[in-house]
Amino acid sequence: MSNLSPRRAKSGDTALFVGKDRKSYVRRLEPGGKLMTHLGVIAFDDLIGKACYGDRLTTHLGHLVYFLMPGIDDLLSHARHATTIVQPKDLGYIALKLGIQNGTRVIEAGTGSGGLTLWLALLVGDTGQVISYDRTPTAPEVARRNLTRTGEAIAQRVTFKTRDIAEGFDETSVDALFLDVPNPWDYLVVARAALCGGGHFGALVPTTNQVVDLISALYEGLWFCVEVEELLLRSYKPIPARLRPDDQMIGHTGYLVFARAVNARSSDVSADSGDKPEDVS
Amino acid sequence: MSNLSPRRAKSGDTALFVGKDRKSYVRRLEPGGKLMTHLGVIAFDDLIGKACYGDRLTTHLGHLVYFLMPGIDDLLSHARHATTIVQPKDLGYIALKLGIQNGTRVIEAGTGSGGLTLWLALLVGDTGQVISYDRTPTAPEVARRNLTRTGEAIAQRVTFKTRDIAEGFDETSVDALFLDVPNPWDYLVVARAALCGGGHFGALVPTTNQVVDLISALYEGLWFCVEVEELLLRSYKPIPARLRPDDQMIGHTGYLVFARAVNARSSDVSADSGDKPEDVS
Amino acid sequence: MSNLSPRRAKSGDTALFVGKDRKSYVRRLEPGGKLMTHLGVIAFDDLIGKACYGDRLTTHLGHLVYFLMPGIDDLLSHARHATTIVQPKDLGYIALKLGIQNGTRVIEAGTGSGGLTLWLALLVGDTGQVISYDRTPTAPEVARRNLTRTGEAIAQRVTFKTRDIAEGFDETSVDALFLDVPNPWDYLVVARAALCGGGHFGALVPTTNQVVDLISALYEGLWFCVEVEELLLRSYKPIPARLRPDDQMIGHTGYLVFARAVNARSSDVSADSGDKPEDVS
Amino acid sequence: MSNLSPRRAKSGDTALFVGKDRKSYVRRLEPGGKLMTHLGVIAFDDLIGKACYGDRLTTHLGHLVYFLMPGIDDLLSHARHATTIVQPKDLGYIALKLGIQNGTRVIEAGTGSGGLTLWLALLVGDTGQVISYDRTPTAPEVARRNLTRTGEAIAQRVTFKTRDIAEGFDETSVDALFLDVPNPWDYLVVARAALCGGGHFGALVPTTNQVVDLISALYEGLWFCVEVEELLLRSYKPIPARLRPDDQMIGHTGYLVFARAVNARSSDVSADSGDKPEDVS
Repeated sequence: MSNLSPRRAKSGDTALFVGKDRKSYVRRLEPGGKLMTHLGVIAFDDLIGKACYGDRLTTHLGHLVYFLMPGIDDLLSHARHATTIVQPKDLGYIALKLGIQNGTRVIEAGTGSGGLTLWLALLVGDTGQVISYDRTPTAPEVARRNLTRTGEAIAQRVTFKTRDIAEGFDETSVDALFLDVPNPWDYLVVARAALCGGGHFGALVPTTNQVVDLISALYEGLWFCVEVEELLLRSYKPIPARLRPDDQMIGHTGYLVFARAVNARSSDVSADSGDKPEDVS
Repeated sequence: MSNLSPRRAKSGDTALFVGKDRKSYVRRLEPGGKLMTHLGVIAFDDLIGKACYGDRLTTHLGHLVYFLMPGIDDLLSHARHATTIVQPKDLGYIALKLGIQNGTRVIEAGTGSGGLTLWLALLVGDTGQVISYDRTPTAPEVARRNLTRTGEAIAQRVTFKTRDIAEGFDETSVDALFLDVPNPWDYLVVARAALCGGGHFGALVPTTNQVVDLISALYEGLWFCVEVEELLLRSYKPIPARLRPDDQMIGHTGYLVFARAVNARSSDVSADSGDKPEDVS
Repeated sequence: MSNLSPRRAKSGDTALFVGKDRKSYVRRLEPGGKLMTHLGVIAFDDLIGKACYGDRLTTHLGHLVYFLMPGIDDLLSHARHATTIVQPKDLGYIALKLGIQNGTRVIEAGTGSGGLTLWLALLVGDTGQVISYDRTPTAPEVARRNLTRTGEAIAQRVTFKTRDIAEGFDETSVDALFLDVPNPWDYLVVARAALCGGGHFGALVPTTNQVVDLISALYEGLWFCVEVEELLLRSYKPIPARLRPDDQMIGHTGYLVFARAVNARSSDVSADSGDKPEDVS
Repeated sequence: MSNLSPRRAKSGDTALFVGKDRKSYVRRLEPGGKLMTHLGVIAFDDLIGKACYGDRLTTHLGHLVYFLMPGIDDLLSHARHATTIVQPKDLGYIALKLGIQNGTRVIEAGTGSGGLTLWLALLVGDTGQVISYDRTPTAPEVARRNLTRTGEAIAQRVTFKTRDIAEGFDETSVDALFLDVPNPWDYLVVARAALCGGGHFGALVPTTNQVVDLISALYEGLWFCVEVEELLLRSYKPIPARLRPDDQMIGHTGYLVFARAVNARSSDVSADSGDKPEDVS
């Protein structure tokens, strides 16, 4: 199938290997390197400059393995991480609700393992910027490794800062800001100060108690369009003769809270005439 | 709050107006123009060069209206459309699963009302490209209007083609390809021919019957990593004292099917040893 | 099809009529009565002693209407009600989790429109008993009408009491007790006093705040096995060639909270070593 | 708490023991018997005639264990079963949709491990009847053991028949019939023959392909009011300060299909004007 637009493997590429059993591996193609799996071994020297993405490889044990470029979901599921990472189902929606696009300048805190960092960096492009805060000094290391694996140019789009965000953000007028911390309500004033007027705010919190605390605080500050949402992803067994959802699914990752930064209080007429939608229950 | 990074309204901007009742309007700020709502009137001449995004405006009837930049979800919910548009919950995940990033070259068919077109164009940047096929000659008009409203530079990233895709795509080696058509299985050969090896394929179909037909066809062609998923979005009433999900929710938009383009059949050993995960039911 | 076990319509029966458009009507077959619908009229005198359940009737306009016995879900959806009624999806599960069976003695408060009352009465049989409390003097009227429509024998199984349950329940040693009131935490002591040791407690509350208040109070009292659950019902368009979920679904009715009455505090060793499952998040 | 309606343990009772860690055990209280757990031992001779349900017991190791009557969900989760059993979330709804109540005569096939059998037997009472068919000769043994554990009177309500149901059911004019078999469409004619006019039909099938086959067949026979539904149960961590859904949930058990038996074809006017709701997609 050589006429089908081959992209040849290069040294330094980060590649995805998927066995017929759907088990997958993400590896950097270093000369002399090897993929060692339960299906056998593949030497990277046999791939660099030779194999094309999309190719079906054969291990030394004769097993078939597909050779692909990793998607963001592959990178994330193979990322080194000490902390919980934001799930792909949430990542896509966060990007959309934060108005992320080519050229966006966005702050995130904390850095965590850099999953959201990577996704944002891929989207904002060279004209955008991701500023990632975490008070754990070691956080940037893990995140940077995950970024660099994807590409040096991608990593360049991210600035890491080790800081307790209670001290405030250095930036002002950023387009979007996302808080993945246990107590986002404590940082709303500094978040507002960093955002441009109309800017997009988002947060992810796992419990309903945190949602209550966060939206209560948002109604007290310079915020409008408060939204609380959650996404459930249902995967199906992709078998034509027996199509059905998987037996198990992720029951919960977290609640997503979004708001827009405004220049004057939304509830200054009266506490109840503000942004809060009428309760119809 | 003038020290909070004002972004001043410019002539030609596409702006979002949100009333205290959360009813919202998307309008282009043309000199002499007006927003006419049930809450009163706002003259654009009072905004251009004066108002800042995030400002709280007052209509001639004294009602408060927030002045914001529209997000992609605002643009989509206010887009002119004759056809069903892909929902924000699906858009975010599609971008992620298709590996969309700054610089991606992606084909979509059909154009529809251009909702996905717009979202892809925002993400791929000036170094990327969106090629949008539809056999309805009028499709590009609606889609282009929705794009232009967002910005001329964004619109430049999109190439529209009026074509029955059964005739094939002009492009080869694109990074990703998405089919939002009733019979995607009929176009898998031309889709594979347009994609690079390892490229990302996606489709959205509303019925289980279509899922069965599509994945059956994928297993017969040059595809691997077939996945079937769906997303459920649950919105909550954002009331601190009475947090609860909305009474009604969208029960279904469609099933998302993803696959990766490969250079050799995944099932050539035998029909059953291929990509198809074991049925554990 | 007369050999297919005909059950002939009797005067006084409560019957279900379903048009080809799936619109349905529940009516009591009184001599001289008529079903009047947009599909035409059916005289009950033509049915009593003549028509069999399962028959296809013809209105005076020639439209086809099926003649059926109403199920509990039909009765509920056609019940007169001023208040929100518990949905069928929740009713079934409540009965199971409360250990309802033939012979059970169960208390409910409030009566509301008698939907749960009816369902419980159908299940407990003549050897069981349903005691239904409501402080609204008019509540029993509506509920009794809905019960009587189903059958006098069914209605006999229910005792209505007009009472503010803060004053306590008259009964002791009941098998199960269900609270469908806004502040169930205020009645846990009287609920425990009414239940037998090991008895089943349940409540339905719409907000997360109420769940928090209720389970907090349960941990302070003579309760164990505290559970919080919710059910989502997804209906499909039953079209063989285009099987898919309905576009809209009920997003929320309420959270179900269950617990078991015990004779000694579960948390008397220490506040944290009690029933509360470990937080694994 | 002896004034709280004690129910004293009797020899032969089936009891539920729940440790502080929520691990639970269902055991029959035979004289001389013992509960042996990781928390220690409890001798049944210390309970029979002495302990009351709801009591907090102490193992020989000093650990606390609650002594309760098992609910149907406890019985099912501790039932011996070789086959998949119908989940509580589905059981409750099935009973409701089949119109099960005190006095109902209902057929089920197959018997499986007797989970649904038990639930139906508890509800129909001594005036009702459950007839359970299975072609596996050993099926009744397991099911009967599970029934007897709950009570001899309950077991008396069930008649087991070892039969390939393709040969038909012995009964006619039953109120309800439930098929939990892989190919329910093959038995619709015999099912209709067993049901009374207007009777309730239900089936549980795991795949969308089976749903399509089943509803196609229903439209060809003497059936109306075809419905396809599924229930999702979401459990929450019952922690007042950190209320949130469980991380994992059951993603799928099966699709529930319901219909009503009628005496004349619903689609005899024309194939498309029948029961099938209009497709609005």
